[in-house]
Amino acid sequence: MLLNSAQIGHSVPIWDALPPQVLETLGEIDFRVDIDSARPALTELLNRTVLDGGKRLRPMLTLVVGHVLGLKLNDIVPLARAIEQVHAASLAHDDVVDNATQRRGQDSINVQASNKRAVLAGDYLLADVIVNLTRTGNLNLVKEMSDVISALSLGEWLQMDAIEKRSYSSEILEQIFRCKTASVMSWCCLAPALFKHTNIKTVELLRSFGDHLGIAFQLMDDALDGSQASQKDQNLDVENNQVNAVALEFLKDHPEKWKAYQEGQNLASVLENADLSKAVQSVRAQANAKMESAHLILDQLAYFLWPEESLESKMAHLAPLYFIMKLIIDRDH
Amino acid sequence: MLLNSAQIGHSVPIWDALPPQVLETLGEIDFRVDIDSARPALTELLNRTVLDGGKRLRPMLTLVVGHVLGLKLNDIVPLARAIEQVHAASLAHDDVVDNATQRRGQDSINVQASNKRAVLAGDYLLADVIVNLTRTGNLNLVKEMSDVISALSLGEWLQMDAIEKRSYSSEILEQIFRCKTASVMSWCCLAPALFKHTNIKTVELLRSFGDHLGIAFQLMDDALDGSQASQKDQNLDVENNQVNAVALEFLKDHPEKWKAYQEGQNLASVLENADLSKAVQSVRAQANAKMESAHLILDQLAYFLWPEESLESKMAHLAPLYFIMKLIIDRDH
Repeated sequence: MLLNSAQIGHSVPIWDALPPQVLETLGEIDFRVDIDSARPALTELLNRTVLDGGKRLRPMLTLVVGHVLGLKLNDIVPLARAIEQVHAASLAHDDVVDNATQRRGQDSINVQASNKRAVLAGDYLLADVIVNLTRTGNLNLVKEMSDVISALSLGEWLQMDAIEKRSYSSEILEQIFRCKTASVMSWCCLAPALFKHTNIKTVELLRSFGDHLGIAFQLMDDALDGSQASQKDQNLDVENNQVNAVALEFLKDHPEKWKAYQEGQNLASVLENADLSKAVQSVRAQANAKMESAHLILDQLAYFLWPEESLESKMAHLAPLYFIMKLIIDRDH
Repeated sequence: MLLNSAQIGHSVPIWDALPPQVLETLGEIDFRVDIDSARPALTELLNRTVLDGGKRLRPMLTLVVGHVLGLKLNDIVPLARAIEQVHAASLAHDDVVDNATQRRGQDSINVQASNKRAVLAGDYLLADVIVNLTRTGNLNLVKEMSDVISALSLGEWLQMDAIEKRSYSSEILEQIFRCKTASVMSWCCLAPALFKHTNIKTVELLRSFGDHLGIAFQLMDDALDGSQASQKDQNLDVENNQVNAVALEFLKDHPEKWKAYQEGQNLASVLENADLSKAVQSVRAQANAKMESAHLILDQLAYFLWPEESLESKMAHLAPLYFIMKLIIDRDH
C-alpha cells in the first residue's frame, strides 16, 4: 500500500522527492504486535490505540536514511517497526502520566482501557521491541534503543518536575525536547548506519542530524499547538500547566503574566485571550535555525560519504532527507 | 558486608551451606542505580523504595548458580544486579497496578511519590538494566531478560483479567505464577550458563530448574500469606479480590463459598473467619512436589556436568543449590 499525502497530513503532493520503494516499504510494514505471540486482549488494545494511525514519520525517516546509505529496505524494516513501537509504548505511558483523554482523534489508551492496563501494555510493548531487536544480532542497536527508552522516561520526569515547580527556561525545555523527541529521531538516523556496521563518523553525524531534526520537530509541534487545532487533545499542554515553547516565548515577553503564573495562577487563565502570534513566529524561527544546522551536518555527511562526487550528485543522494526536513517544517498537524 | 540470617529473614543459621564468597559478593553488590547517570530525584526515589531491602533472593540464586558452574563471581555481579533491578522495576509497576500502600514495611513507591512517578521510574529502571546488560556483550542474555520483562507484564495482565472475570483455575494460576515469578527465577539460573557460553543442555536444564523453583516459591508465598502476617500489605491479595493458591484450594473445597464469590460477593467477606489451615497445608504440599521435581532436574544436571564423579562429590557441588531450595521451603516471610 502506498501512503498518500492525505494520510500523512500534508496538502502538497511533493512525494516524488521520496524514493518510491521507501513509500512502498513503509506502506507494507505491519506495525501491529503479533497477536499469536501474546495475550490477544493485550495486543489488541495496543493495535487499536497507540499502534493505529499516526504519521509514521519515524519509520519513514529510518527507511529514508537506510536508502541514502544504500541499504536494502527490507533489511531495515525491523528497525523502522521497532522505533514506531517504542514511540507508541511511550505514548501509552505518557497518556497515563498526562491524564490524556484523546489521541489521534479517538479515545486514548488509558480511556479505552484503564491506567493500569495502559501501563502493562506499554511495558509489554517495550520488552517486545527489545526481543525483536536482538534478532538483528546487533548489540549496539539494542543498547542505543535502551538509551532512547531511558531518555523518554527521564524527559517525562523532567517535564513533571518543571510543571510542579513552575520552573521553566529555554535550557530546561531543550533538555526535555532532547529526551522526549530528539532521542527517538536520532535513533532513526543512526540505526541504519549501525546496522550497516559503517564507520563511527557516519554514525555520529547521523546522530547529530537526528537530534537537530528532533528539536526542530518539537518546536514546530509547539508552534502548531499554539496556532491551530490538532488531533491531540486541544490545549492539553496548557491545561496541564505545561509551558511549551510558544507559551515560554510569550511569558518571556510578558513579565506580569510570567509573575502571575509563577505565583500560582493557572497557565490556561494566564494565557486566556492572549495573542500568541508573535511567540508562534519566534518558535518557528527557532525551528528553522535548527534545520539550518541540520543542513550543515548533511553537507558534512555528503562530503564524507561521497567525496569524489559533484555537488549536484551529493544533493541528489540527500534529496529524500531534504524532503523529510521540508515535511517537518511545512506540516500542518 | 556479609549478610546475616536476620537480614535474610531466616531463623536457623545454616548459612555454612553457601560458599562464603557468594555471601561476601552478595553483600558487596550495590543494587542502587548510579546517581550520576541520571536525574538525581528519579534514582533517589528508586533507591529508597523498590531497590532498598528485600531478601535479595534472586541475585543470591544467580551467584550460587555461577559458583556451581565454576564462574568467577565478580564476572556475574552485573547479572545478579540486573535481575534484582528488573524485579524492583516490576514491583514499582505492580504497586501502581495493585494500588499497594506498603512494601517491605514502608510506604510503597506509588505512595511515596505518585502513580505517575512510579510508572516513569520503573520505565527508567527497565531501560537502564538493558543498557547495562548490553555491556556483557552477550545478546542472548539481553533477549532472555526482555522475555522476562514481557512475561512480567503479561502475568500482571492475566491476573487483572482473572480478578475482573472472577475466573480462576489451577491452570490459570500456574500460568500467572510462571509469568510473574518463575520467569525471573529461571533467568537467574540460566543467565550464568549463557554468560559462560556453555552448552544448550545445561542452559535448558537450569531454565527448567528455575521454573520449578519459582512456582514452588510462589506457592510458599501464598501459603505464608494465608497463614501469618508478612511485610507486604496484609491480605492485599484478598482485598484486591485476587484468588491466590490458598484461596483457590479453600474455594474448591467449599462450593457454596465459590458460588457466592462467583456471584459477586467480595473475596474478603467470603473468606471471613474461614479456617484456611487445610488449604495452606495443601498448597505447601504442592510446593514440596515442585521441589521434588526440581531435585530430579538437578540430578540430571549433575550427571551431565560431572559424569565421572561420585554421587557424594556431585552432591557437594550442588550443596549451595540445595540450600536455596531449603531456604525457599522453610522461609518464614
